Amino acid sequence: MNDIMSPLQLEAALRAIGAKHYHNLHPFHKLLHSGGLNKVQVQAWALNRYYYQSMIPVKDATLLARLPDTASRKIWRQRLVDHDGDEASAGGIARWLRLATGVGLDADYVQSTAGILPVTRFAVDAYVNFVRDKTLLEAVASSLTEMFSPTIIAERVAGMLAHYDFVSPDALAYFNARLTQAPRDADFALAYVQQHAHTPAQQQAVLAALKFKCDVLWAQLDGLYAAYVNPGMVPHGAFMDVAETAMAG
Amino acid sequence: MNDIMSPLQLEAALRAIGAKHYHNLHPFHKLLHSGGLNKVQVQAWALNRYYYQSMIPVKDATLLARLPDTASRKIWRQRLVDHDGDEASAGGIARWLRLATGVGLDADYVQSTAGILPVTRFAVDAYVNFVRDKTLLEAVASSLTEMFSPTIIAERVAGMLAHYDFVSPDALAYFNARLTQAPRDADFALAYVQQHAHTPAQQQAVLAALKFKCDVLWAQLDGLYAAYVNPGMVPHGAFMDVAETAMAG
Repeated sequence: MNDIMSPLQLEAALRAIGAKHYHNLHPFHKLLHSGGLNKVQVQAWALNRYYYQSMIPVKDATLLARLPDTASRKIWRQRLVDHDGDEASAGGIARWLRLATGVGLDADYVQSTAGILPVTRFAVDAYVNFVRDKTLLEAVASSLTEMFSPTIIAERVAGMLAHYDFVSPDALAYFNARLTQAPRDADFALAYVQQHAHTPAQQQAVLAALKFKCDVLWAQLDGLYAAYVNPGMVPHGAFMDVAETAMAG
Repeated sequence: MNDIMSPLQLEAALRAIGAKHYHNLHPFHKLLHSGGLNKVQVQAWALNRYYYQSMIPVKDATLLARLPDTASRKIWRQRLVDHDGDEASAGGIARWLRLATGVGLDADYVQSTAGILPVTRFAVDAYVNFVRDKTLLEAVASSLTEMFSPTIIAERVAGMLAHYDFVSPDALAYFNARLTQAPRDADFALAYVQQHAHTPAQQQAVLAALKFKCDVLWAQLDGLYAAYVNPGMVPHGAFMDVAETAMAG
């Protein structure tokens, strides 16, 4: 049986999970940020992650539909604006598409998601289903990987611009927006779980939800590593399966 | 636009998918059957696949709940008996547990599923969700990998007994039962899709459902390969993560 944690202890426990399980520690990201990947491997990352990006508003709408009060729905609604855009701004999905085309992929091919790895789809869909099927508290907690994203973004942008001549600042515009959006979203979600996790069991469920989300991100990089860093493991029909697909760009 | 296929043409198209995408072609299975794995790698396979086995009756009950007539429900019900057992027989899950303990794993650890790879959970849950959310025709079609299982089982049993001194015939009892169950189940499901796929679009959906299921099986082996054949990629908390888990047996 675990003791009840104070709000600050809960935050520290969440940060400890990030320090151990967040995907900045994955070998694929280390290669990505240090210039250890070739252009095709960077394309595979951009292509697969597009599916994750494209499902984020679906995830957020699923969560929004479960929020019982106007105040929190209005706050969560901003995430839809951030990712799907509005009159003033194109939104995160469009920015990610710019990244993908900026590294040489065809926009229609990316948007079709035809060439993504099955594991990408399984992991991302698992996240959407988690947000639909678990408690609202766990659903909110699963967004808390955003507590850790500013660090990885800073590393990534600097590393990718320094090491890849096919990556331009314009292609990385997605990350500039996230540097302000993610902390704002994470602040709300952290305060929410601190306020609504009243029992040790609820606090443990919050921690488990964050661990689950770290697994969702980590598994996507495992898939990329297995398919595109270790040669010969590209599933049939996925990007760069030489047996059957022609690559774009 | 595809033309309508005759029942025999549809069967041939299904077999062509199996010939290309079924997981007997995966490098992990080739290693498993040829004696190329060590005991820990065989344990990892048995441990992870236990989760797949344990969810099969959940998948079948989900499908059973969607069948509209007594006759087909009674036929599909046999799958629950096969996997969950009855007075006369222990059932497939119990037989798989015997396989897992037979290769040296602790039964409680296996049944907890605490040490499985996240990708195993994502892929297996994707299968259950597919059967719940897609059309009934696609749900039935996704079971058709059983058309191909007798071949892989024959290879596997012979190969494992020949190459691993820690594998006994008793541990492989699961597969003996499947050699008669799987063809019976596959015959019914094949006749069902031949009878109920009336349009080219429905036939293409049937083929896509089988491809999806092949991806579910393939992704599980990708995960095992990445974690246990390529050293150093075991996710935190999974079986043989030296940083935090103690292994059983």
